[in-house]
Formats: sequence, structure tokens, C-alpha cells
Amino acid sequence: MPRNGLTYAAAGVQLEEKDRFTESLGSILRKTHGPRVIPNPGGFAGLLRLDYNEKLFKRNYKDPVLVACADGVGTKLKVAGELGVYDTIGIDLVAMNVNDMIVQGAEPLLFLDYIAVPRVDSVMLTALVRGVAEGCRIAGCALLGGETAEMPDVYPPGEFDLAGFAVGVVDLERAVNPCRVRPGDVVLGLGSDGIHSNGYTLVRKIVSHAGLDLRAVYEELGGKAYAEGADGARSVPSRAAGRAGATGTRGARARPTLGQVLLTPTRIYAQPIVKLQRDYKVKKVISGMAHITGSGMDGNLCRALNTRVDAVIDWSSWPVPPVFRFLQRHGGVAEAEMRRVFNMGIGYCLIVRPDFADSIAARLKKLGERVYRIGKIVRGRGDVRAG
Amino acid sequence: MPRNGLTYAAAGVQLEEKDRFTESLGSILRKTHGPRVIPNPGGFAGLLRLDYNEKLFKRNYKDPVLVACADGVGTKLKVAGELGVYDTIGIDLVAMNVNDMIVQGAEPLLFLDYIAVPRVDSVMLTALVRGVAEGCRIAGCALLGGETAEMPDVYPPGEFDLAGFAVGVVDLERAVNPCRVRPGDVVLGLGSDGIHSNGYTLVRKIVSHAGLDLRAVYEELGGKAYAEGADGARSVPSRAAGRAGATGTRGARARPTLGQVLLTPTRIYAQPIVKLQRDYKVKKVISGMAHITGSGMDGNLCRALNTRVDAVIDWSSWPVPPVFRFLQRHGGVAEAEMRRVFNMGIGYCLIVRPDFADSIAARLKKLGERVYRIGKIVRGRGDVRAG
Repeated sequence: MPRNGLTYAAAGVQLEEKDRFTESLGSILRKTHGPRVIPNPGGFAGLLRLDYNEKLFKRNYKDPVLVACADGVGTKLKVAGELGVYDTIGIDLVAMNVNDMIVQGAEPLLFLDYIAVPRVDSVMLTALVRGVAEGCRIAGCALLGGETAEMPDVYPPGEFDLAGFAVGVVDLERAVNPCRVRPGDVVLGLGSDGIHSNGYTLVRKIVSHAGLDLRAVYEELGGKAYAEGADGARSVPSRAAGRAGATGTRGARARPTLGQVLLTPTRIYAQPIVKLQRDYKVKKVISGMAHITGSGMDGNLCRALNTRVDAVIDWSSWPVPPVFRFLQRHGGVAEAEMRRVFNMGIGYCLIVRPDFADSIAARLKKLGERVYRIGKIVRGRGDVRAG
Repeated sequence: MPRNGLTYAAAGVQLEEKDRFTESLGSILRKTHGPRVIPNPGGFAGLLRLDYNEKLFKRNYKDPVLVACADGVGTKLKVAGELGVYDTIGIDLVAMNVNDMIVQGAEPLLFLDYIAVPRVDSVMLTALVRGVAEGCRIAGCALLGGETAEMPDVYPPGEFDLAGFAVGVVDLERAVNPCRVRPGDVVLGLGSDGIHSNGYTLVRKIVSHAGLDLRAVYEELGGKAYAEGADGARSVPSRAAGRAGATGTRGARARPTLGQVLLTPTRIYAQPIVKLQRDYKVKKVISGMAHITGSGMDGNLCRALNTRVDAVIDWSSWPVPPVFRFLQRHGGVAEAEMRRVFNMGIGYCLIVRPDFADSIAARLKKLGERVYRIGKIVRGRGDVRAG
């Protein structure tokens, strides 16, 4: 199935289902296409101009570097599958890739997806791609194409997989480099929207071990479902979440189920980070960044450091969202293990020059982020430690 | 698992197996890295300079356009899995993507892979990535990173999946455009290396239906196994293949099994096509190109046409490799179905100006391709037809 320049592979059967899916694809993709995308219907690949005129390109990039990464969403897709909710996992897919890419200082340009299913189901596939397109809209990049593979011999009924691929561009002299981090720098943390897309193997073990019901509402979780506006409990410390939830104007109807809380999409930090970097185009006020994923704060923030500095993190400086304490309690998980597996409320870190920490924090708050001053850089050996 | 700038996701268990795999990754990837790749150990994404100095970049690209595509290898991976041969399917993965991309006139720059497995097996994963790296070496692009996902809940034991993403660059005014094709143009076909990576659902049905043995040698197949130099039977017409095979100097030892024939990697046309375009930098002698994949010659060549021309193909103008006739006979497959599913011996097409057809064909032959003059462009409605 050609999809605006890419083949959405025709795998043999179910032609009507495929036609239904293909019909909806074009308009979904086009919504993410800015003036940089060159229409190429039926083509073999997607086309994106690095800038839409030569002058602009030369002003923006002296030595353009492409930044590329690939990632999936792990077993969060099993939760989506169990609940039959396919419209937000695509946002997670974009987030996992784009958040990794902006760490290098890059501006996201384009995204491609790979979806593998046992059977073409146009409703499910359209929901998946709609989520990917929504993620691209949030991140400000073009969904240039993708591939849908129908492989009943590889995927058992009900299973599926998703992979994504993002490309951005940064001018070489503006690319973030661990060498720039120095003692005195301040670590700012940006609030996460819950679990994001890591640790779901552990999450699912806790759910089954404790006999939790994905479709039930648990008072301790507080908050609102994503679809109804997930902002409710965002800045509320975990211990107050139960009470905060009760102040919701719509009462019980607005309370999300455990499944809805677990499917809250990964926050995409691209727009605020790109805007922030444009604001400080001349001064290099950001010395490092980190996307907090699989191995938690320690395992990811250390990747932004050089071997002459440590990051000292004050773990009491931000509110841990209720979902983490809920899972910890029901699974009897040690605090160290929680911190190693989950983001614990901070999805993205910036290491910034101390003189600019306040103005950067204020700017990011204005752009809609929850910002916490969570630590500082000291002389060291490249480690992240509590203090 | 960070892999030169990308996370090869740590999925929880089997740390020793992962360490073994990670150790080998760095050196495999680095072999594909030219001076454009910027070392970024432990980083969140891979970095590639569009050119390694400003002057060169400006000389090469006035209006640089990124060309991107995503693809998998379909159920050819089931054949690899059944035979436990994992070192060439990565070449197929690169080929499927890069051959699509060069159709637009682009030069391949970078590649990323996504590998999903039920359990980390360092021997298997290393073989897979080695194949991907070998494909990148042949295509002349950098394997910038990738993602390995370990998901026992999604993939049953023995199953796995592979997806790839390729990015290239072309100057806008040099990008291939269907509008340029006009009556009188000549269609050149480049020989395929067998089935390539499409139609394996049908191939596997024929194998099981006819009770064929992947480990057996069938005289009718002729040729040599890929690992021993697959060039033997390349230019031999199918009917003569049985005899041609018998002239091999190494006798029976050199004859490939059915499985080896089916796993022959997809031919990568990137280097000859990129070189050809450099040779004809000023004159626009190529008016269209097509990668012959899933829906065969008709379904793919039509994508290179505009609605005012037809391509008339002489199906007797090239030798059909023996594997196609072998499968057709054992499966009782109609000729029309064969042509709709398989490449039938032509893996890539170029539509060229008639005055340059001979010199282009000679140049491509010098670059190692088997080249056939397979058809011509006439007035029409965008169709591909036999004649």
C-alpha cells in the first residue's frame, strides 16, 4: 500500500480492509506535513526539504548534522492490546524517539513508523497511525511515511509490534556536548506524565501479582484520564492526590481507571526544548540534557556528564506522581528498584548555567512544563548520586 | 544497551548474553562509519554530518532534500529462522529500504534497524547486525544505530522481527520526477539475485504444499550458494541452468540447497546507481527509476510513469532465473500470478533517454550489473503492458 511515498506493504489478503485503511492514511499523514514536505504520491520514499529556501537554510545551518534514532514502546503495547485502546500508543512511539533526539540539541524533522500485525484491521491500524500523527503534531515533525507488515506466521492473533524512527537536524557547533558540563551548573527536571513507556514488564507483573483490575478505578491513583485532560493532578504531590482528586468538578465520572492511568501517553518535550534553544541562540546556556527512560534518573543523566563532574540530585525536590507509589505498594518494590526502573516523575533533565537557571525555568513554565530545580553539578567522576 | 549513540534497550534479564552482544556491536557499527559520522559514545542518538565541510556541502546541495523510507523483510525471515541462518537477512533489510530510496535519485546516508526478539541470543543478534552492517557497507551508508527489543510476551520462542529505516539526500533539482518520462525513452532492467524479499508467503506455501526440503539440493535450481560466490549462474538463461550448473569446477559441493537459494540476499543497487548519476551530473539522462518489489514489474514500474505515457515491456528480453520456474512448476502457479508476485529476474528498472541507453547500459555493466534493454516508453495513460 503506497502511503504518500512509502509502501504500506500489500501482504496478500483482506483487500477491502486494506483499502479502508489506505483511504484514511493520506489525510492523516498530510495533517503533519508543513511546507518542507514535497508531495510525492505513489513514490517509493518520502521527501523533505531541509529548508524551504536556500537563504533560510544557510542562516540556520552552517554545518548541518543529522540526528537519528530508533525506538519502540516496549510492552506498554500489551496494555493497549489488553484494553483494545490503540489511539495513544502512537504518541508514546513518537515521544520515545523524539525525546531521545532533542537531547542532542536537534530540531525534529521527520518520523517514520513500522507496524507489524497478524491481520489487517483497518479500525485498529487507523487508530495506531492517528496516534503516531498526533505525536508528530505535538513534536512538530512530519510523519513522512511508514510500513505496515501483515505477518500471521510471526504474530499470534491479538499481538502486534510498533517501531519508530526519527530524524532531526542540528548545527554542529550547537550540538549538545557532555564536555560543556561544569561544576556549579544547575539540574532542572521537567515533570513526566506518569510511567511513560518504560518498565511495563514490571508494571504488568505487579498488576497480575496483586490481582489489580485495569478497568477499575482506584481512589489512590487520583487524576483524570488523558482523554478528558490529564492535567488535573499534575502538580499535586502524591500524598495529596486522593484529596486533590475529590475536588474535581465532575466527580467520579472524571476519575480514570488503572488502565487509563497506565496508558497516559509519554510526554513529548520537543516543542518547549526547541523553543528554549531558539530563545538562547547566541549564548550556550544549556550544557547538557537527558531523556529519563529505562534505567531511570541515574542511568540516563550520567550520559549527559563528562568524567570530571558528578550530578547531585535532591530526590525530595519534586512530587512523585501517585501511580508510582500505587505500584510500589501493590508490588512491594524496593525504593532503589523503583528509581532504577521508572522515571519517578521527572521525564527530562536539563543541565544549565547557574546564572540562567531561573530564567530558563520561568520560560519552560510559560511553555507549559512543570519545572523543578532538582540538583547541581559538582566535581566528580561522571556519576549521578543522591544528596 | 547504548549502541554508539542509540539505546539497545535493556529489557531486564540475561545480562551476560546482552553484554556479549553489546561488546561486538561497537566494532560492527564502526566499520560502516565514514568521516561523516560524529562519534557519540553513550549518547541518545546517532550523529551524521551532511557533508564534512561547508564548501563541499554547498557544491553538492543547493536545495538539499531528505529522502526517507521504512521497510521490513516480510516472511523471508521465517525461512532464515527455520534454517537458523541469520547472517544475510540483514542485507535484505538494507536492500529493501535503500533500493526504494535511490529510486528518487538520492544518495544513501544512514541506516537504523529495529530487531525484536523473544529472548536475547547474542550469537543470533550479532549475526543479524553483522548482516545489516554488511548491507550498509554494500550500499555505502552508515549504520548509525538501532534498537533491540526483548519481548517474550509478544514474540513466541523462535520468532523475531526486523524493521529498517534509511535516510538519503538529493538536490531538489536532481530528484527523479515522473513528469520527465516521455515517449521514446528506453527501459533498462537490472538483473535480480533471485526472489529478493517479496512473495515469501507464497514461496513458503509452495514449499510445504509440494513437500520440498529446504536442506535438499535440487538439480533444476542450478547456481551456487551465496556464501560461496553467487555469481555462477547469474547470466545463464533458466532453461540452460541445469547444464550450466554441471560445468561448475567444484562439482556437487558448490551446489546450493533450496534454502540457500531462497536466502540469497536481495541485490543492493545503490553504488552503481549513485555512481551513474554522478557520471551524468549535468545532463538529466535518467527520467525515471523503479525498485521491483511486492507487486512485480507492472505494479512498481507504473509508479515511475506519468499519465501521458505507457511502458511496453518485452518479457522475453531477459533470462528468468531458474528458481522462479522451479517454484512455478512445484506450485502450479499461473504465469500472471508469478509476474504479479515476483520480480522474475529484474530487480530494478531505469527509464533513460534513447540517445544514452547504450552508454548507460555499458557503464552499468562495467559496474557489475547484468543489464537488459527490456522495453520502451510510448504515448499512453500511465500503464505498464506487455508487447
